[in-house]
Amino acid sequence: MTRGKVTIIGLGLIGGSLGLALKQGAGAAASAAPAPTISGWDLSPAARERAIALGAVDQVPDMLADAVADADLVVVAVPVLGVRGVFAAIAPVLHPGTVVTDVASTKALVCAWAAEIIPGRFVGGHPMAGSEQSGVEHARADLFAGATYCLTPDASTPGAALERARALVRTVGARPYLIDPQTHDRAVAAVSHLPFLLATALVEVTTDHPEWELFRALAASGFRDVSRLASGDPHMHRDICLTNAAAIRSWLTAVAESLQSLAGALDHAAPLLARFEHAKAARDAYLAQKSIEGEGQAE
Amino acid sequence: MTRGKVTIIGLGLIGGSLGLALKQGAGAAASAAPAPTISGWDLSPAARERAIALGAVDQVPDMLADAVADADLVVVAVPVLGVRGVFAAIAPVLHPGTVVTDVASTKALVCAWAAEIIPGRFVGGHPMAGSEQSGVEHARADLFAGATYCLTPDASTPGAALERARALVRTVGARPYLIDPQTHDRAVAAVSHLPFLLATALVEVTTDHPEWELFRALAASGFRDVSRLASGDPHMHRDICLTNAAAIRSWLTAVAESLQSLAGALDHAAPLLARFEHAKAARDAYLAQKSIEGEGQAE
Repeated sequence: MTRGKVTIIGLGLIGGSLGLALKQGAGAAASAAPAPTISGWDLSPAARERAIALGAVDQVPDMLADAVADADLVVVAVPVLGVRGVFAAIAPVLHPGTVVTDVASTKALVCAWAAEIIPGRFVGGHPMAGSEQSGVEHARADLFAGATYCLTPDASTPGAALERARALVRTVGARPYLIDPQTHDRAVAAVSHLPFLLATALVEVTTDHPEWELFRALAASGFRDVSRLASGDPHMHRDICLTNAAAIRSWLTAVAESLQSLAGALDHAAPLLARFEHAKAARDAYLAQKSIEGEGQAE
Repeated sequence: MTRGKVTIIGLGLIGGSLGLALKQGAGAAASAAPAPTISGWDLSPAARERAIALGAVDQVPDMLADAVADADLVVVAVPVLGVRGVFAAIAPVLHPGTVVTDVASTKALVCAWAAEIIPGRFVGGHPMAGSEQSGVEHARADLFAGATYCLTPDASTPGAALERARALVRTVGARPYLIDPQTHDRAVAAVSHLPFLLATALVEVTTDHPEWELFRALAASGFRDVSRLASGDPHMHRDICLTNAAAIRSWLTAVAESLQSLAGALDHAAPLLARFEHAKAARDAYLAQKSIEGEGQAE
């Protein structure tokens, strides 16, 4: 089903995992079509070498133009603020039929840049999968298995481009989820960017405290899990904040108010219990719904 | 090493897991001493029946006095605000040599109650292990394996009582960690109670939002993990807040200020990156230290 040549620009956790998953998915598909050639490129020669050594890509030309030449699909897998530069660099060398997608964490700005620089061939993408670990050395072929994978076409997106992006998503084992860029950015502010900032704030206030060495001895799985996202890539998260600031700001304010309200309720048994029961019911319902949906299709 | 009779009052996740771990640990010990008889008691007849069915305890007398009779160790495993009532109920029927410990999440009040009601035989305890799941049906023999297990003796604690509590900790596979009750409560406010309240606030603000159904579709492992603790037992967490309010309040205020400060920094690339790098370094260092300490002894 996937064939020809796929070029992945940016060989980090996501780019590398896409390469591994494309190879595995094409091999597993009940199709007579040959597996695609995976061409890769990264600013860092070391990342290029590691990607080849790990089998995430088949070839890593020195020149970006060579990596992109003859590709039927180009996947831009760099942090948000690097995407515009990549669009500008590849625009002059793209063949007429080449489809371009990306994996960046925010979509409104990226889609606007694509409309300006590489019109008529772009479909925004964002796999709802990842890890606090970064770098191609942490890439995994099963990173996208069962994950929701957002695609953000608009009225100007050619049908063939959307179909090519959908095929990519299915080949790596994920479920296409169509959403407009603005709605996407509002949603990920709530369920992805806000959790990262809560983890970061938790780590800031506790580890900067003079008694941290003492606190640390008692930290167990709760602290470990709530703080996990703070170990994520600082550059990626900086770019996310810079490109989704308004939506994120309103959530930060809402949580700060919720915490102040909890601080005022700590001596009041009944309202405190009611809030904890309400949150538990909501979180348990979310888990139950996710579990049901995991068996179906996002699209 | 463990012998005689151990009585567990409160057959939930922790009480049930202690029963399973005591049986497994005594069986595995290179000791000729017989495994102890585990007697259990719970207000709920259903919990008593489940604990027997799961093999977490050997016997569940109907009367608390019968469960406690002849025990060389009594473990009180009920939520904090239930502990005082259990102390009062068992005080008249304890034999002279019986040692009492507990597993409650806050220690200053519990230790004060013990000094008043069951003096000269108590050692406060708190295993730094658990789960957002509650109830004996989630009990696991390996829940305490490798965990730090706080013990809070003071100058009036008999040496034999501390030794008996230490033996319990080691038999269930955990590492004894001696700490005074006030320091303990300050530390768990930071690394346990605060993470729970952050998870709860995250769930409150997102799931109460009119667009939650839309946000939910994009929630992945980050949201799942940061929100996990909000699924914990509401009654246990209410009791924790009521008995450690001052320490928790100062942390809630500190995080609210940190979030407001992040909200103001979202458009400022350099300070934002510096904060994210600082938090990542601190969180990675915490993980690395935990990993080294996991190979040693807490005491």
